[in-house]
Amino acid sequence: MTIEEEVLKRIKPSKEDEEKLRERAQIILDRLKGYNAEIEGSFRKGTWLKGDTDIDIFVFFPKSVGKEYLREKALKELIERFRDLNYKIAYAEHPYLIVYVDDVEIDVVPALSIESGEEAITAADRTPFHTKYVISHLDEKGRDEVRLLKRFLKGIGVYGAEIKVKGFSGYVTELLIIYYGSFKEVLRNASKFRPPVRIELVRPKKEFDSPLIVPDPVDPKRNASSAVSLKSLATFALASKIYLEKPSMEFFFPSKPGRQTIKGDILLVKVKIEESTVEDIIWGQVWRNVEKLKTLISHEGYRVIDISAWGDAENITIGIQLESKSIGEYYLNVGPYFYLHNVKNFIEENENVWIGEDGRLYSIKRRRYTVEEIIKRNLSFKQKFTYELQWLTEEVDDPWINLFLRKTPSWLK
Amino acid sequence: MTIEEEVLKRIKPSKEDEEKLRERAQIILDRLKGYNAEIEGSFRKGTWLKGDTDIDIFVFFPKSVGKEYLREKALKELIERFRDLNYKIAYAEHPYLIVYVDDVEIDVVPALSIESGEEAITAADRTPFHTKYVISHLDEKGRDEVRLLKRFLKGIGVYGAEIKVKGFSGYVTELLIIYYGSFKEVLRNASKFRPPVRIELVRPKKEFDSPLIVPDPVDPKRNASSAVSLKSLATFALASKIYLEKPSMEFFFPSKPGRQTIKGDILLVKVKIEESTVEDIIWGQVWRNVEKLKTLISHEGYRVIDISAWGDAENITIGIQLESKSIGEYYLNVGPYFYLHNVKNFIEENENVWIGEDGRLYSIKRRRYTVEEIIKRNLSFKQKFTYELQWLTEEVDDPWINLFLRKTPSWLK
Repeated sequence: MTIEEEVLKRIKPSKEDEEKLRERAQIILDRLKGYNAEIEGSFRKGTWLKGDTDIDIFVFFPKSVGKEYLREKALKELIERFRDLNYKIAYAEHPYLIVYVDDVEIDVVPALSIESGEEAITAADRTPFHTKYVISHLDEKGRDEVRLLKRFLKGIGVYGAEIKVKGFSGYVTELLIIYYGSFKEVLRNASKFRPPVRIELVRPKKEFDSPLIVPDPVDPKRNASSAVSLKSLATFALASKIYLEKPSMEFFFPSKPGRQTIKGDILLVKVKIEESTVEDIIWGQVWRNVEKLKTLISHEGYRVIDISAWGDAENITIGIQLESKSIGEYYLNVGPYFYLHNVKNFIEENENVWIGEDGRLYSIKRRRYTVEEIIKRNLSFKQKFTYELQWLTEEVDDPWINLFLRKTPSWLK
Repeated sequence: MTIEEEVLKRIKPSKEDEEKLRERAQIILDRLKGYNAEIEGSFRKGTWLKGDTDIDIFVFFPKSVGKEYLREKALKELIERFRDLNYKIAYAEHPYLIVYVDDVEIDVVPALSIESGEEAITAADRTPFHTKYVISHLDEKGRDEVRLLKRFLKGIGVYGAEIKVKGFSGYVTELLIIYYGSFKEVLRNASKFRPPVRIELVRPKKEFDSPLIVPDPVDPKRNASSAVSLKSLATFALASKIYLEKPSMEFFFPSKPGRQTIKGDILLVKVKIEESTVEDIIWGQVWRNVEKLKTLISHEGYRVIDISAWGDAENITIGIQLESKSIGEYYLNVGPYFYLHNVKNFIEENENVWIGEDGRLYSIKRRRYTVEEIIKRNLSFKQKFTYELQWLTEEVDDPWINLFLRKTPSWLK
């Protein structure tokens, strides 16, 4: 049995799995009598993975009601139908309901009914067109190829368009299989990716500026893969190249790293968000904090080996790896050339001023902030939050910390 | 009394000083009966400073004997005349004699007799033309202006064309006064210097590539100021600007710095040259070592605040000031973009390889050498030498170390 056959055996849902999900969905659909309600998403498209226990049910309202109606009236109406069930209100671009039926999570999403994907007002309006496009372009074999590719992307950590991952959405995964025909053919092409990469099932109706450009066949003014970061694209390309040379289960189901040696000085910033919010809202801020801290810490003279973050919408750890936290209290300050007008200011404002071999003035300055102080002054979230700082002094078992220390994915080396 | 008048009072030799030197010179000239011997240099030109106790006496041989004759036969002949006196053989471009008469040091220099400065075969052959040019272009007042400028250049540390200083020779100092007319006028112009600076008493007969270009009036194919480094030029320009705004004795007679705070980590490399050699030969190597160490130490990841050297032809200290000597055992190693062909080698040859946000591969590497090891592997002299390393752990009284720590000359701030 090839690796891919073995993987497929593990990830392809059985008839019973499907039946179980369909029964739970039917309970919700029954409650939505009188509405224009439809199953969408990977369950409907037949590309979901075994163990996935969420189903999308979209409820369509006439376009004329407008998107404000969806936010308020529509949501209230829907709540009326499920008030005796276990449900909660969740937020994407708009609010929607998550209804729990046994261990199945059913997202009930209000959307506007439109004539074509190009008329979409909210992202949800476009979904039924994605569903139709995928269903009409994938046969049974193609759906399994999608499943393999999804699992591959999950394994290498680039599956999901959410801000935390900046990876490939389920829809983009499906489009890749539709375009290239099979899992292997996608990898063969991905292994040669060099950004910007254009995959045109349809001629784009707009200029896009992203590492990966996949014009949406149902709305060619939109880049379906705009979420894919350069890092995710690079990871996919490199993983594809290596997998083709030496296939392994590690790509699909990577093993967790064991205890790792600490190299350099590792500071953990453990953030707790005190007001719960949508993960995308939090992670947009997490990555902005990461970028900002990297810049400021480097600017202060520390050499940053790596900075990354892991966690969820409430508990986030930012890991900062420095070559050394003992970089000295003083630093070389480079001043103007001796013949420039600002030389006198430089002399007045500085200590230990001298003239270098290159004719520039130099001075010695005292550093202003330690790493801890930089974090204290700059870490910020719109939500209420607290944080703790911890220098890693000994090896630990936390798999995320060990992944941060090891860096190399198990499929790479 | 102005500062300059006060300085001149201290540095202008008296009639008695002159008489004393002339008597000693006459003793040597008497011994050189039958030779074409002449006093040259600053004593002859009337631009020497009080306390200077060396006189140059040149002995001219027909051009036809050639420069090899000067090295051997001529030197032997001259030695014959002084064998009962206290003398030693010294080396510049060619060997010459230093004869000690009381506390006066008389350099007896063999040279070739030529028709014009442009025919010079050795640098010494050109000297009588310099002497004539200066004598015919400077009056009593001008000679005092030269003295002021010499003392100023000495005070700010840029007097002398030797490799250790890379500064202004006596002759260049004289040419500056001849060109600009007075000490003050030289400073007024120097304060506006912006390299390359051209001072043309004569039209150059060659292209020169130096920060300061002063074509030699007696040999315009030569740049009389080729020894002047950018740093020396910058120091002179800046000192001139500041002196004109606020004259002070500190420029002429700088005070020694007191004990200074140690900033960063200071490593002293104390070199002892075991074979005595001409200072220029040693200092050419000292500065090459300084440049090389600076490059290698920086390359290894240390941040060098400053590196300098002081001492003489036998005992040299190289001072190395680092922001910190604790820079960590590991460093960030930047690799190729993910789509380049050498990616596979990078993965094989490195540890902790990962893909960065920018699509490049990175890894963590272990540093190879400490500062001490870099010095051990790279410090080199053609002469036999030994050295000791010493990290400065407490404040000391050594004025050179304090100057290295303070950096700022007393006239600057």
